[in-house]
Amino acid sequence: MTKTKTLHDLFEDTLKDIYFAEKRIHSTLPKMAKAAHNEELRAAFEKHHRETEEQISRLEKVFSLLNRKPQGKTCDAIVGITEEGAEIMSEYKGTPALDAGLLAVAQAVEHYEISRYGTLRTWAQELGIDKAAALLHATLEEEEATDEALSRIAQRVVNRDALAESAAH
Amino acid sequence: MTKTKTLHDLFEDTLKDIYFAEKRIHSTLPKMAKAAHNEELRAAFEKHHRETEEQISRLEKVFSLLNRKPQGKTCDAIVGITEEGAEIMSEYKGTPALDAGLLAVAQAVEHYEISRYGTLRTWAQELGIDKAAALLHATLEEEEATDEALSRIAQRVVNRDALAESAAH
Repeated sequence: MTKTKTLHDLFEDTLKDIYFAEKRIHSTLPKMAKAAHNEELRAAFEKHHRETEEQISRLEKVFSLLNRKPQGKTCDAIVGITEEGAEIMSEYKGTPALDAGLLAVAQAVEHYEISRYGTLRTWAQELGIDKAAALLHATLEEEEATDEALSRIAQRVVNRDALAESAAH
Repeated sequence: MTKTKTLHDLFEDTLKDIYFAEKRIHSTLPKMAKAAHNEELRAAFEKHHRETEEQISRLEKVFSLLNRKPQGKTCDAIVGITEEGAEIMSEYKGTPALDAGLLAVAQAVEHYEISRYGTLRTWAQELGIDKAAALLHATLEEEEATDEALSRIAQRVVNRDALAESAAH
């Protein structure tokens, strides 16, 4: 029988999951920025693309604190969410609702990350890996700020554009 | 050429996505409740299972406000998250870390729902479907309360159990 799995194993497994997810998000954001019509939304995606690089680097520091090589593990959730994004980009291409759809996908991504980083930070604290907890907390705060920024853009610009153009059709 | 898709189409598509997701969650929660070791966690899953029934019924009311028959559309994101849950239940079965893993999956589910209901409520408001906005808002508040309740259980009980038992191995 293999060794009983512990919270430490779960922490490492979940770290691999979010490492895969961040890399997938990093490769998806430029496509979303390119697809976005609204300038402010495009700028938000580009800013978050740059932040994602720093977030990947923080995860690599956490792996290093555990004396582990950074390693990803397929995260079915983020694969699913980014597939929904690809569907929106294809089905709503050239329509006034595209930006609203892109925003909704981006917020689903942010919320997935918020839940993961919240969990990982709590586990790092419980496991007494304080430096890891601080790194994960820093990213959690960035993700929450990104989600709030997207909500502001959604209410201010994108939905109004979509409505105005819907009314014109 | 087909009619240009609008925010109203996006609202309906996303409603079908969360309707599918709620039904999937409704069938998954009893398995998670059965797997959970911690009494308080099991009770939280059972409570949320009952709430999910009401949330499905609210979605059906929203479909009815649109003069549409309730219809689901495969939500890849929730399929991905619940597959991760099944993986945790299998890989961590009988280990002290199982409950922490179940909690993390449940919080990922909640956050996906929070992002979806937040988006749908905003769109319903923009589209002037006030009764739908109120129904979606009611569920959003329940999902946020569930997420907070799970965070409290995580910090108070499950992680401590997992740690104590980890130390004993």
